[in-house]
Amino acid sequence: MSNKIWGGRFREKPDAIVDQFNASIHFDQRLYAQDIEGSMAHCRMLAKQGIITEEESSSILQALDEIKGEMDQGEFVFDETREDIHSLVEQELVERIGTVGEKLHTGRSRNDQVSLDVRLYVRDAIDRVILLIRDVQNALVDSAERNGEFILPGYTHLQRAQPVLLAHHLLAYYEMMKRDGRRFQENRKRVNVLPLGSAALAGSTFDLDRHAVARELGFAELSGNSMDAVSDRDFVLEFIFNASLLMMHLSRLGEELVIWSSHEFGFVTLPDALSTGSSIMPQKKNPDLPELIRGKTGRVYGHLMGLLTTMKGLPLAYNKDLQEDKEALFDTVDTVVQCLMVTTRLLKEVTFNEKAMADAAKEGYLAATDLADYLVSRGLTFRKAHETVGKMVLSAMEQGKELHQLTLEALQAASPEIGEDVFQWLDPAECVKRRELPGGTGPGAVRKQLEKAREELGS
Amino acid sequence: MSNKIWGGRFREKPDAIVDQFNASIHFDQRLYAQDIEGSMAHCRMLAKQGIITEEESSSILQALDEIKGEMDQGEFVFDETREDIHSLVEQELVERIGTVGEKLHTGRSRNDQVSLDVRLYVRDAIDRVILLIRDVQNALVDSAERNGEFILPGYTHLQRAQPVLLAHHLLAYYEMMKRDGRRFQENRKRVNVLPLGSAALAGSTFDLDRHAVARELGFAELSGNSMDAVSDRDFVLEFIFNASLLMMHLSRLGEELVIWSSHEFGFVTLPDALSTGSSIMPQKKNPDLPELIRGKTGRVYGHLMGLLTTMKGLPLAYNKDLQEDKEALFDTVDTVVQCLMVTTRLLKEVTFNEKAMADAAKEGYLAATDLADYLVSRGLTFRKAHETVGKMVLSAMEQGKELHQLTLEALQAASPEIGEDVFQWLDPAECVKRRELPGGTGPGAVRKQLEKAREELGS
Amino acid sequence: MSNKIWGGRFREKPDAIVDQFNASIHFDQRLYAQDIEGSMAHCRMLAKQGIITEEESSSILQALDEIKGEMDQGEFVFDETREDIHSLVEQELVERIGTVGEKLHTGRSRNDQVSLDVRLYVRDAIDRVILLIRDVQNALVDSAERNGEFILPGYTHLQRAQPVLLAHHLLAYYEMMKRDGRRFQENRKRVNVLPLGSAALAGSTFDLDRHAVARELGFAELSGNSMDAVSDRDFVLEFIFNASLLMMHLSRLGEELVIWSSHEFGFVTLPDALSTGSSIMPQKKNPDLPELIRGKTGRVYGHLMGLLTTMKGLPLAYNKDLQEDKEALFDTVDTVVQCLMVTTRLLKEVTFNEKAMADAAKEGYLAATDLADYLVSRGLTFRKAHETVGKMVLSAMEQGKELHQLTLEALQAASPEIGEDVFQWLDPAECVKRRELPGGTGPGAVRKQLEKAREELGS
Amino acid sequence: MSNKIWGGRFREKPDAIVDQFNASIHFDQRLYAQDIEGSMAHCRMLAKQGIITEEESSSILQALDEIKGEMDQGEFVFDETREDIHSLVEQELVERIGTVGEKLHTGRSRNDQVSLDVRLYVRDAIDRVILLIRDVQNALVDSAERNGEFILPGYTHLQRAQPVLLAHHLLAYYEMMKRDGRRFQENRKRVNVLPLGSAALAGSTFDLDRHAVARELGFAELSGNSMDAVSDRDFVLEFIFNASLLMMHLSRLGEELVIWSSHEFGFVTLPDALSTGSSIMPQKKNPDLPELIRGKTGRVYGHLMGLLTTMKGLPLAYNKDLQEDKEALFDTVDTVVQCLMVTTRLLKEVTFNEKAMADAAKEGYLAATDLADYLVSRGLTFRKAHETVGKMVLSAMEQGKELHQLTLEALQAASPEIGEDVFQWLDPAECVKRRELPGGTGPGAVRKQLEKAREELGS
Repeated sequence: MSNKIWGGRFREKPDAIVDQFNASIHFDQRLYAQDIEGSMAHCRMLAKQGIITEEESSSILQALDEIKGEMDQGEFVFDETREDIHSLVEQELVERIGTVGEKLHTGRSRNDQVSLDVRLYVRDAIDRVILLIRDVQNALVDSAERNGEFILPGYTHLQRAQPVLLAHHLLAYYEMMKRDGRRFQENRKRVNVLPLGSAALAGSTFDLDRHAVARELGFAELSGNSMDAVSDRDFVLEFIFNASLLMMHLSRLGEELVIWSSHEFGFVTLPDALSTGSSIMPQKKNPDLPELIRGKTGRVYGHLMGLLTTMKGLPLAYNKDLQEDKEALFDTVDTVVQCLMVTTRLLKEVTFNEKAMADAAKEGYLAATDLADYLVSRGLTFRKAHETVGKMVLSAMEQGKELHQLTLEALQAASPEIGEDVFQWLDPAECVKRRELPGGTGPGAVRKQLEKAREELGS
Repeated sequence: MSNKIWGGRFREKPDAIVDQFNASIHFDQRLYAQDIEGSMAHCRMLAKQGIITEEESSSILQALDEIKGEMDQGEFVFDETREDIHSLVEQELVERIGTVGEKLHTGRSRNDQVSLDVRLYVRDAIDRVILLIRDVQNALVDSAERNGEFILPGYTHLQRAQPVLLAHHLLAYYEMMKRDGRRFQENRKRVNVLPLGSAALAGSTFDLDRHAVARELGFAELSGNSMDAVSDRDFVLEFIFNASLLMMHLSRLGEELVIWSSHEFGFVTLPDALSTGSSIMPQKKNPDLPELIRGKTGRVYGHLMGLLTTMKGLPLAYNKDLQEDKEALFDTVDTVVQCLMVTTRLLKEVTFNEKAMADAAKEGYLAATDLADYLVSRGLTFRKAHETVGKMVLSAMEQGKELHQLTLEALQAASPEIGEDVFQWLDPAECVKRRELPGGTGPGAVRKQLEKAREELGS
Repeated sequence: MSNKIWGGRFREKPDAIVDQFNASIHFDQRLYAQDIEGSMAHCRMLAKQGIITEEESSSILQALDEIKGEMDQGEFVFDETREDIHSLVEQELVERIGTVGEKLHTGRSRNDQVSLDVRLYVRDAIDRVILLIRDVQNALVDSAERNGEFILPGYTHLQRAQPVLLAHHLLAYYEMMKRDGRRFQENRKRVNVLPLGSAALAGSTFDLDRHAVARELGFAELSGNSMDAVSDRDFVLEFIFNASLLMMHLSRLGEELVIWSSHEFGFVTLPDALSTGSSIMPQKKNPDLPELIRGKTGRVYGHLMGLLTTMKGLPLAYNKDLQEDKEALFDTVDTVVQCLMVTTRLLKEVTFNEKAMADAAKEGYLAATDLADYLVSRGLTFRKAHETVGKMVLSAMEQGKELHQLTLEALQAASPEIGEDVFQWLDPAECVKRRELPGGTGPGAVRKQLEKAREELGS
Repeated sequence: MSNKIWGGRFREKPDAIVDQFNASIHFDQRLYAQDIEGSMAHCRMLAKQGIITEEESSSILQALDEIKGEMDQGEFVFDETREDIHSLVEQELVERIGTVGEKLHTGRSRNDQVSLDVRLYVRDAIDRVILLIRDVQNALVDSAERNGEFILPGYTHLQRAQPVLLAHHLLAYYEMMKRDGRRFQENRKRVNVLPLGSAALAGSTFDLDRHAVARELGFAELSGNSMDAVSDRDFVLEFIFNASLLMMHLSRLGEELVIWSSHEFGFVTLPDALSTGSSIMPQKKNPDLPELIRGKTGRVYGHLMGLLTTMKGLPLAYNKDLQEDKEALFDTVDTVVQCLMVTTRLLKEVTFNEKAMADAAKEGYLAATDLADYLVSRGLTFRKAHETVGKMVLSAMEQGKELHQLTLEALQAASPEIGEDVFQWLDPAECVKRRELPGGTGPGAVRKQLEKAREELGS
């Protein structure tokens, strides 16, 4: 006899290859808690509506509770010959309490049930990810405060550009994480919609109370159209996209940690406990963690592209292709959870090397923009000032000097408008201080960013 | 002499290949209106803050206005040897009004300027796309009302499943479009942030009034961190992702229009004016439009993947790689604008073939679920009822009959609980009427969906 | 004490989070056979070169053989606290035979070792995939012969176009599979290159005999540059791309099987044993297998995009990001192996419904092109003939007739050149027979395609 | 009257939106030369087979030649209201020579014609790309010879690993390019197949001589199945994939040029003529070219993903979706052509800074592996030697010394096996020399790589 819940119309049992290829039990067992939670809410409602009796309901609920308990404890052996977690739970129920268990599926299809389970799962995942994003943000803010005075070169094109505060640099990532958090919050609104009641695709014929189920499961809305409800995976795609952006941000931080921990930059030292070695080169201490975070970005992008491809051109309503949503989703959740946790650890434990940064900020003509701005204050147009300073830099380079190493005379030769006060425009610390516009790298502006961040984090 | 705005520090002029490879003028000229609008706001603020004089400001503003006018009229010849639209406008300005034009760039970098221009562009694009989505929604709702009574088979796995109202089927797409619209609305909030004042990466040394510029340009917020501001392209990626989901939805509709206009389905007839022929086969009338919409989904997905790849692993702050955002963005905007317009036209003008749909709804045992539900009302458990009906279907198939063509005796032989009232459970129209839960395909439920849609559309 | 093979230079043990995030043992244990095979070849060569003694070699080889035996039997418990399969095997070896086992890694790094293991794995995978492609080809050819006479409409734009032989249609997939097979063959040449001897990145200082190892392991070439060798994953990407094209082809066949098994087309009947049912709709028999094949295309595309992203912009030589290659590869192999097997089963067991196809080929003016060609033979230019037939079709449609149902007079009214012999141009079987050019759908041309295929398959 | 070549069967003219959305003339005009070349071969064959007369053929050929001449000269104004390049040429022909021009399309469909045109285009593109790859290879080999003695640190994980020759490092890219070239060669074989004769999908009814056309156009094979021929885009996807791998390789080189031209590394100096400046920062000299190459990788990946998506799940044979292949292809060709040319320029003109590299190779314990190998030669097992050296490095670091700065006594304290000869194991130049295995970084091994490369390049 078949172990399927749909055999009546079939002359032949499914072939082993169908079972194996078709089955999702090996990955969707991960949804057992959501599946049972949803079934319990459905069951209570069936009883309340008089579709099943209170006794039937009690019996079902008790057995479901037992099953879940065993699964929670890791005592339950998942029979991988079952088709999926939904069939497995229903069949287990019937084995335990007999035919009354066969009533649970009344007014429901796997099509709306699987949508429900995935929604409950994604809702939890979002809540978790949002907390972990907050951990990264807190670590950034803490580090920004801890290393608040450090000055390093800000880079564009990986060329030294202008001196910035390390705190300012770190808070750039705070902003990215803030957007990530908001996107997940918005995503959650579209997840938090009850699909149950949509049945196979056209809605149920039973007098179900969809509102009651929604209330019990904490959903803010009912799905508005049953055909859409069973074939909609937008909320999964949105989650994976938001995860992709998040990973992209972490990959940028990862790249910086890799570059900064190179011998040449030396801006950062990873603790031994967060580094790894080489099987052959005894001296190596490698930044595997930020590299892996960077590398895992591809994995999440891949899941996004994979599921987008799968969804392309599917006619309504449910198609089996949709089953491909789950492994991509699960791996995305695992990956971002891990990467966020590792990022927090890294941010908490890396050492920023103040001196290396400060030394770097002194070489490379980082004050050139300020010097041009100075010339503007002396009456030059900005474009003229820019050109003049460009030539001064060229000349200084040829002499092997930095701008602040030139004499006043040399400076004045290039531009007679220059006065003695010019030298205070050439010091990195002064350059930083001059940028106090909102969002700028000036110490005051950064303090305000920090205060706002603390407020947003509620800490 | 070089036609660059940054030549001072260089001994050699850029090589032709650099110019050509590096230049963006051939595509970013599309941003001229945004660029000039942003420059005018910047200029007014510079004057207000006393950084330039009112006279200088007037002169600059007037020349910018002239330039924009010529560009609007198509009279302006874009010199493709310029580096980009920002340089071109600045150099044109200087040519027209002399060195006073060189003051415009005071306190600004191309890094924050290009971010500004793109934000203005995306904001406009979102507003346009939202209107076009609304057009599709209106066309869906109109068609749903026009063809309100039509019944067709609802499909899962492209197999006939249960009868549904065509209106219900169309409103599934309404829901998808609704989510699309909301995602673009949320995207807009993150677009609507002023980056100007961030300068190259560290903020400006001039006493700029960022709030004034934001007010003038209609931005709701200031960017919070200058390093983030010049390297952030999240809002572009979000736009392209939202466009990808939108295209995915349109590809599903496209697939259905292609399948439905096949000879075999025959549910829909495209007007001649929206069809094309073959160069060799005289009889052909092809659904090129929905096919192209379906096909263009790949293009937008590709832009998403392309820009995500480009952004991966970039260190802060600005890197030249970011220049690759624009062509992907522009083509995405063009594609979704066209596809939305074409979809609206199609929805307005296709003919749904009521008889073909109705005939199809009568064959294929579409009432089987209802028959199982009927047996549940007679006391069977759902799983037992499912199995019983499965066997009835198998038996009917072997006799070459539909369920409603079986005699009462034959039905009762399969399940003695069956009474004479069973036949009203087997009629497609009755099956539809039995599904009046919120979101279901029942006429009342669909009417409520329509009313809600009208309300949401404000029509 | 650390369970790492590289602890000497570290003051602190790696943190649990590093171990967990960094470790690959949970997925790379799949490479145990390749790892041990490679180690044995390395060991023999070390002895042959006098780097270790024959006794040492014997001892190591015997222990490796034992370990492999236990792993093959499933008796070995993989300790998931190890870092990776390479460390695990080395440490197990040392546990069994003491310090002599510490000599195995002489002249080798994990960087070249992992490349070796993956190459051996991909080589096996390619050989397997090529055989499975051949199975699909055989099933196509068998089916083409079995159903050799069946005529169905050929479609373009999913509109009936011209009648074709089913055998011809099936052989189109034969051609796709042929290209797939060739691409994997070419891929194999680039896989079949020995990286060992490259050590960490610069080559080994020991007097290794790379040629001997290559011979023993069946590699046709040595890698030409050690820095390239340890950082090259082209061959993995090529494999995943070839798998992507293969999946794309299978997705097209899957789509056709889904469409053809719809009630409306009815060209094909899937056996019960290769179909599945619905949890709620008792009548459903769904083509889950071809749907899943279609859906899994996204998964493989995703892996391709993921690994391409990971590789983008990595500096030389090895970076930890490369570890992300394996899970994508393994899942790709599993997916294509399964999909090929399922496709073969489907092709062997589906029933093509001759009558449904033949009926379809008679409606829809499929002979229109032939009629135009007939007019060309009567002296019209092709463009004129095309237009004339177009008008005949339009007129026939308005009368609700097919072309062959028009009278000779009616036909001649449209084009006086028409003679009585025209009717043989309008019969589907005659249309097919008229296309005997190489590659055409004529029975003779198809027979030649079949013969060539049989020859290529060596059967 | 419509300007379509297929209007006969239609009551209504196509709508403007159809024309605009559907048309490909704005991009496929790029195929004019291929289109006309193919038409001329088709025309000659028609005459040879007696399907048209020699006079007709002459007239057509002469007119086509004229049209092509005008197009080559840029004198021809492409009428963008035409549907596509195929229609445009045919209609232009008829305008010039009258109805005889209407005979050209005999035995041909746009479906096989467009496949032909694209194949001719890709074949040319491959030939061009292969030459440009060779240019890069020559530039690499020249630079490797020019800078043959330079030693720099080889990196793994961006940490200094072992000293290598710059020539060796450059030749790693030579190997990548070699694989790229071979993949394009193999791709070419699958491109070089004549589709003409496949007509719409089922083959032509005319007695065409496919072999003659193939010979004239230089195709090595005929397509084997007409349905496959009109719907196959494998060869385009293969091209874009090969381009993706190529771009990935260039992105790695780009990343290295960016990192190496940072102030911190300083290994490379870009010439002014191949660098760009900043609009605001006068001192900046940015490596825009390698950044752009790196960034454009995303673009090509995107095209790959886009077209793969488009092809997924398309039923046979031709579908309009296929039209989306061309823009992706054209942009890919343009991008790789530009990036290859720019890479060659960069390689020819960058200056490698020998001293900076040499200095870097002296710091960071790069000889640690050699020291371990030395200990192996003194009888330690490799694992023991690795651990011992690890501890020596740790101790040296704490003293702020490099290994070669330790006294013999200090070294012996760590490992009594050490003799005086150890110091020659610690010198970077000696480390390099010790790696003379095939593919290693030793001067002799590198010379052999260079010789082989020269031979392969035929120079």
